[in-house]
Amino acid sequence: MNVDVVLYAGLLDSYSFTGKTVVVIDAFRATSVIVEALQNGAKEIIPVSTIEEAYELKQSNASFLLGGERGGMLIQGFDFDNSPFSYTAQRVAGREICLTTTNGTRALNGVRDAEKIYIGSFLNLPAVALKLVESNDVVIVCAGSEDTVSLEDSLCAGGILAAMELHASLTITDAATILKSLYLAHKADLQALAEAGTHYQFLKSSGFEADLRFCLTVGKRSIVPVYDGLRIVKS
Amino acid sequence: MNVDVVLYAGLLDSYSFTGKTVVVIDAFRATSVIVEALQNGAKEIIPVSTIEEAYELKQSNASFLLGGERGGMLIQGFDFDNSPFSYTAQRVAGREICLTTTNGTRALNGVRDAEKIYIGSFLNLPAVALKLVESNDVVIVCAGSEDTVSLEDSLCAGGILAAMELHASLTITDAATILKSLYLAHKADLQALAEAGTHYQFLKSSGFEADLRFCLTVGKRSIVPVYDGLRIVKS
Repeated sequence: MNVDVVLYAGLLDSYSFTGKTVVVIDAFRATSVIVEALQNGAKEIIPVSTIEEAYELKQSNASFLLGGERGGMLIQGFDFDNSPFSYTAQRVAGREICLTTTNGTRALNGVRDAEKIYIGSFLNLPAVALKLVESNDVVIVCAGSEDTVSLEDSLCAGGILAAMELHASLTITDAATILKSLYLAHKADLQALAEAGTHYQFLKSSGFEADLRFCLTVGKRSIVPVYDGLRIVKS
Repeated sequence: MNVDVVLYAGLLDSYSFTGKTVVVIDAFRATSVIVEALQNGAKEIIPVSTIEEAYELKQSNASFLLGGERGGMLIQGFDFDNSPFSYTAQRVAGREICLTTTNGTRALNGVRDAEKIYIGSFLNLPAVALKLVESNDVVIVCAGSEDTVSLEDSLCAGGILAAMELHASLTITDAATILKSLYLAHKADLQALAEAGTHYQFLKSSGFEADLRFCLTVGKRSIVPVYDGLRIVKS
């Protein structure tokens, strides 16, 4: 099977995903939040691009909860910030959550023509890889950070590639080879490498280091969220 | 000092190089050819985008030699293909060479607003790194392959970053961290990793594996070619 990687959301316009299976990664922290919320019993996640859309959804559906971030921080009037620890079973079980984040939402919007869209993170990395090897052509989409590559999403993509290769014979692009080789060389201590990342340093300085350490945990969860272009649910 | 990386020539339009020092890498094989030709005494290299421009230059300067490739192969009427072994002292000493290649020329054209433009390859990697640490902000430009990342140029960029860091304290982007970490993890056997590259496999199948092995030799040459927007000479 063929596997390619989109290095950051700003490059999505030059790709077509028709007939392809896509996994979207925004490891710090949107896709980790999605995994945790669904793991803890949330009914569905509705990703939206703007804060206004989130408010509007809440107006027409008073039971909706609102989550997300701008500049890494809680949005005024929202129920949750973008920390995976906020989405506890007590708060999310059975609930619909509207989520808006800077890069993750952009990446999800950009892959809507794909045949299947999964949500990937370090937390569910092995489970995602197992889903992907059942597919035809795969594209791993890194959300990245502000129109450039992010170290953490690249590492996570590399980990998914390495895990896929345990179960299938892959034909991969040079970008995929780079990320897979990076992951394999650093898998014994992902934390040490990830700390060099720009976004890691920014979120750490905002007080979120515990989130980041958690988000770098490989294989803590076995669920694979799937996005139908409107909502994200457990697959 | 700040160091960024442009992952392939197709991304150049979104960068400004004003006031910056740039190194252009097209390791398989244009920048390796430039290093070898100048090492062997060529007077200057004039990179041009099209075969027609090369013919025109030759018409007005009968002493010019023509070199380059299309699809990896010798161009009709040209003196040299794109193999570093073709540019022997006997053939190039004292001569002006007009060079046209697919990706390398494109990368050179795209950085003309830079303050200083060096030519990098594995062959002169340590020498390039020493030049760069004397500069202010640096951008390492990988030519890449057909509008995407190439493994060999990425590895070479990573090697330049690793070598620069031996001599200076660098502030680098996530893209640069990825390539530096990749190089450091694989420096003991670059050949083994590079062989996984798409362009390596293509050129190998065209009979150029000896070129590729040579082009992956780190530090064989100590010259650092410099491009003034018109011609490339020894710095």
